[in-house]
Amino acid sequence: MRELGEVIVVSTDQPMSGMSHAVTIQTPLRINLIRQEEGFREYRTNGTPVDAVKLAKHSVLDKKPDLVVSGINHGSNASINIIYSGTMAAVLEACIDGIPAIGFSLCDYYPDADFSHVHAFLERITAKVIKQGLPKGVALNVNFPKKSEEAVKGIKVVRQAEARWVEDFEERTDPYRRKYYWMGGHFVNGDEREDTDEKALHDNYVSVVPVNVDFTAHEHVNSLNF
Amino acid sequence: MRELGEVIVVSTDQPMSGMSHAVTIQTPLRINLIRQEEGFREYRTNGTPVDAVKLAKHSVLDKKPDLVVSGINHGSNASINIIYSGTMAAVLEACIDGIPAIGFSLCDYYPDADFSHVHAFLERITAKVIKQGLPKGVALNVNFPKKSEEAVKGIKVVRQAEARWVEDFEERTDPYRRKYYWMGGHFVNGDEREDTDEKALHDNYVSVVPVNVDFTAHEHVNSLNF
Repeated sequence: MRELGEVIVVSTDQPMSGMSHAVTIQTPLRINLIRQEEGFREYRTNGTPVDAVKLAKHSVLDKKPDLVVSGINHGSNASINIIYSGTMAAVLEACIDGIPAIGFSLCDYYPDADFSHVHAFLERITAKVIKQGLPKGVALNVNFPKKSEEAVKGIKVVRQAEARWVEDFEERTDPYRRKYYWMGGHFVNGDEREDTDEKALHDNYVSVVPVNVDFTAHEHVNSLNF
Repeated sequence: MRELGEVIVVSTDQPMSGMSHAVTIQTPLRINLIRQEEGFREYRTNGTPVDAVKLAKHSVLDKKPDLVVSGINHGSNASINIIYSGTMAAVLEACIDGIPAIGFSLCDYYPDADFSHVHAFLERITAKVIKQGLPKGVALNVNFPKKSEEAVKGIKVVRQAEARWVEDFEERTDPYRRKYYWMGGHFVNGDEREDTDEKALHDNYVSVVPVNVDFTAHEHVNSLNF
């Protein structure tokens, strides 16, 4: 991003996996400048990713940013993952506010994941959005396939696949003989359509889903009545 | 709900305002039976509303429930509020899992809010969903207008209004002279269309928005390229 312009980072001081669009209203928020260089400032907050966007707007920026980027998330935010994702929530919060926004994620959860194939595509997508903007009310959910021996084939603009996580709790007993659970799950994709993000990633393309914050199931507004 | 069938409640042990679709993966979860009567059991969890749905499915229920209901939330979940809402996140989690689900909210934040006008409409909507089901992948976001002297005019099936919260942080200084912030905000609705939830509520109707978990901005899938 520093190759493309002035960068202001607002990072969270805790892991935020599965934090979704949560905002902090029960406890006070803090934000501190932790690093400053030419064309670059980094702040850190005790809040969530969505708090970070709101705090940046209120307490850090003196004008609307040209672009909000979030990520690169370490793990897929394709298909239903978007709804659980803190990375994509930050993007959607900027989108609500009318700011062009892109979320980047790599479909590789391993700590030593190889990001080397990401750079060229990330720069191409970002530069195009800075230059041309995005349609009103639309942000991008960009996912990169896991690095493989084969070169990435290109970029596909696609729809969100209909997939889900099936929960898979691990039950344990604490020293006081009380049960507790660790949440886990396995991913189930029954969507066999050709034009989904999961299919593009499976075929070794970068997936780009234009997203918005309208939950309305429009095709049913006129058919339901009570 | 007890007039309509066997009820199993899974409540959260903390306020969950603004918790959205967050799931708990950094800490262990607990769930305990706290009350049991004929046709009724209540459990409580330390997790989020979405955790509650997942835990109910895994640890409490021996079959898929006929219906998941969430609320009555004390405050509006119309328009953009859905994205921040723990109440509606529980509904959407059930929806992902293929279970008919309805979220109920009253557009009144006051602790002594009057719920007396809600009952008849809530029963009518719920009974109809139990009898007829809902379209595949669709759940309902139901909001009741604040009680007024005028009787509620009826039920309207509408779309989510394009509105947003503009953040409005209150800055304070702690005893150690460090700044901190309380998040606030004010609601801005610039959507003047006739067929939105905000318009229906403003006109003293119950608003019903059929919702789904597809974030894709479909009208832009074919027009964007990178």
